Amino acid sequence: MALIVQKYGGTSVGSPDRIKNVARRVAKFKALGNQVVVVVSAMSGETNRLVALAHEIQKHPDPRELDVIISTGEQVTIGLLSMALKEHGVKAKSYTGAQVKILTDSAHTKARIVSIDEQNIMGDLEKDCVVVVAGFQGVDEHGNITTLGRGGSDTTGVAIAAALRADECQIYTDVDGVYTTDPRVVPEARRLKSITFEEMLEMSSMGSKVLQLRSVEFAGKYKVKLRVLSSFEEEGEGTLITVEDNDKMEQAIISGIAFNRDEAKITVMGVPDKPGIAYQILGPVSDANIDVDIIIQNVGEDGATDFSFTVHRNEYAKAMDILKSKVQPHIGAREVIGDSRAAKVSVVGVGMRSHVGIASKMFRTLAEEGINIQMISTSEIKISVVIDEKYLELAVRVLHKAFGLDQEEA
Amino acid sequence: MALIVQKYGGTSVGSPDRIKNVARRVAKFKALGNQVVVVVSAMSGETNRLVALAHEIQKHPDPRELDVIISTGEQVTIGLLSMALKEHGVKAKSYTGAQVKILTDSAHTKARIVSIDEQNIMGDLEKDCVVVVAGFQGVDEHGNITTLGRGGSDTTGVAIAAALRADECQIYTDVDGVYTTDPRVVPEARRLKSITFEEMLEMSSMGSKVLQLRSVEFAGKYKVKLRVLSSFEEEGEGTLITVEDNDKMEQAIISGIAFNRDEAKITVMGVPDKPGIAYQILGPVSDANIDVDIIIQNVGEDGATDFSFTVHRNEYAKAMDILKSKVQPHIGAREVIGDSRAAKVSVVGVGMRSHVGIASKMFRTLAEEGINIQMISTSEIKISVVIDEKYLELAVRVLHKAFGLDQEEA
Repeated sequence: MALIVQKYGGTSVGSPDRIKNVARRVAKFKALGNQVVVVVSAMSGETNRLVALAHEIQKHPDPRELDVIISTGEQVTIGLLSMALKEHGVKAKSYTGAQVKILTDSAHTKARIVSIDEQNIMGDLEKDCVVVVAGFQGVDEHGNITTLGRGGSDTTGVAIAAALRADECQIYTDVDGVYTTDPRVVPEARRLKSITFEEMLEMSSMGSKVLQLRSVEFAGKYKVKLRVLSSFEEEGEGTLITVEDNDKMEQAIISGIAFNRDEAKITVMGVPDKPGIAYQILGPVSDANIDVDIIIQNVGEDGATDFSFTVHRNEYAKAMDILKSKVQPHIGAREVIGDSRAAKVSVVGVGMRSHVGIASKMFRTLAEEGINIQMISTSEIKISVVIDEKYLELAVRVLHKAFGLDQEEA
Repeated sequence: MALIVQKYGGTSVGSPDRIKNVARRVAKFKALGNQVVVVVSAMSGETNRLVALAHEIQKHPDPRELDVIISTGEQVTIGLLSMALKEHGVKAKSYTGAQVKILTDSAHTKARIVSIDEQNIMGDLEKDCVVVVAGFQGVDEHGNITTLGRGGSDTTGVAIAAALRADECQIYTDVDGVYTTDPRVVPEARRLKSITFEEMLEMSSMGSKVLQLRSVEFAGKYKVKLRVLSSFEEEGEGTLITVEDNDKMEQAIISGIAFNRDEAKITVMGVPDKPGIAYQILGPVSDANIDVDIIIQNVGEDGATDFSFTVHRNEYAKAMDILKSKVQPHIGAREVIGDSRAAKVSVVGVGMRSHVGIASKMFRTLAEEGINIQMISTSEIKISVVIDEKYLELAVRVLHKAFGLDQEEA
């Protein structure tokens, strides 16, 4: 007998029929002898409806009251799913965040979980009940209803799994797992049987948005076995997201190719090479709420250096304007140049830590296709390059093949 | 400075604009120096929407889970109204039933209030806050969410007023008070400045459905000053519902004329006059879930009597069928006769206790118009007669005039 936490998102519970489907799946799982806790989101569209209602009253809704309102979305789902389980002859009981209780700080609309009281849930599981918990919500020490922010249901699932020391936390989504890269770009892309938390974090931030980043960090921290599965397919093992596994490290060096299309590249040339210069360049950009991704500064010559970074393409014009009008004259840089048609490609894998030659293999592969590398940035488990956007698909395909990602896992 | 509890129903908070209206009214009241607690229902239509959703999952929804679902309706309203109050620069804070906490028994969907913890609310009132409480809901001793049944928001308002020892509980509805009779039948009908709880109970049960019966009983029991007002009119004092007032008794003998249109009258004739016969007649009717209103049994002659009662017109055929097929042969009654076009008219007033002649005045007034009385039933503060439906409006009009109800109150 295993204790499993399953989390179903808004699309999976988007209608009474879909809720019945989830109930059937949970009932099957329970019949196999498992203890099951189900965490659910609001029915798709419901949170948006409630937020819109709040905005009809206040342009900037009061955060405490907004939480009171939007937390009702999940509360409706837990009731409906519990009913649907009873229709299958399964004992079921719903819990709001406050009923659990999932204690959070008081940062309304983006609260963080402080602790989870697992006693009531454990008591019901021992009585052979399926426990249905409202995701996304909690309660602060004063009894105020809080929410964890969009996507917070994933975090609820992981946090409950951690508190209950569950054998596994299964996140059901509309994809059936994590892939070596986007199958729309590389048809040979393969579902990974497993991936480490760190790799997942690098893949997520690159746009493979399967899970909330925060829930992945949480799972890593509390060593929760996390699995991504499709809520629309009956079979399939999904992708297991694990803490680092030394055995595996020896085998798969690279887990996937991540990429990001809509990048723009900006270089401030002839920057005086002195302390504080990075802040003088990026400060005004950040003040304008423009997110900066890769940042590169080379060693300079003759007391001057070139400073490059990437921004989202939508913010390219705004960033260029700030740099030319405010930064360049102020710091006495020679020139500001940019390119709004850049793309980022990354190879990700914990294995690269102990394997030399990954970078050179990546660069050689791209060179053989005549793809010029404009910027390079590396982390412990990732190498990213910025290239001309027109080569993006080609680069992803050749790298996917070069690192053997189209081969079945051992 | 007075402490006032105001209750607004679903129609009054049926849209964001109407919620803003309520907020404006509450803000005005607060600005006069009052402490205000507002109790609200779900936005009109919302409870029905949620119940329908539950019925899509279960034909007979699980009561505990149904409460989890339908209690969200009021939860949304308290958040929205609190926001709207803040827009008026008024400090406001919302409370669910559980947050108050309104402790109830565990009879889901029809729970009864056991106690109310007034400490949190009092604390907020002292901080100059308007407190907005979700009507209709509570929490049992195990932390389960409960609801009080339809119309329970009135009861929440009265119970909170009792717990806080409020100076007044104001129930805002779509009528501006309690009338001497239905103004659609008698244009001269007058809004009563006050009415006693007992009279109100008699008026309510007769179809003048302004307030939930239960909340009136509750207010009477805990001596809460209850006032019915219109939520759509800015001015107006509504009708005060009071505990019995000896001064008033000497003046107004009759407070109003209540009536009920859709009655049907059934008489079982030639019933053997022996113990248990009433049960043998009404048992099968009640087993078929048919509500019986007036019941009359006259003293019999020659060991036989006639037994009459009224039912709702929709159930007349069903009741007649049961009586003819099951009851009549079983008890050996002579005949079952009935009339589906009956109506009931009542004069109501605490004053009649100490004044003789009310009944004779009523009967004479009807006789003068040639209206035949088919049945008579009396209670301490009410005399009801059953008449042919076609005379209903005429009877109400002449009685209204005969008892001086069209005259201004002293």
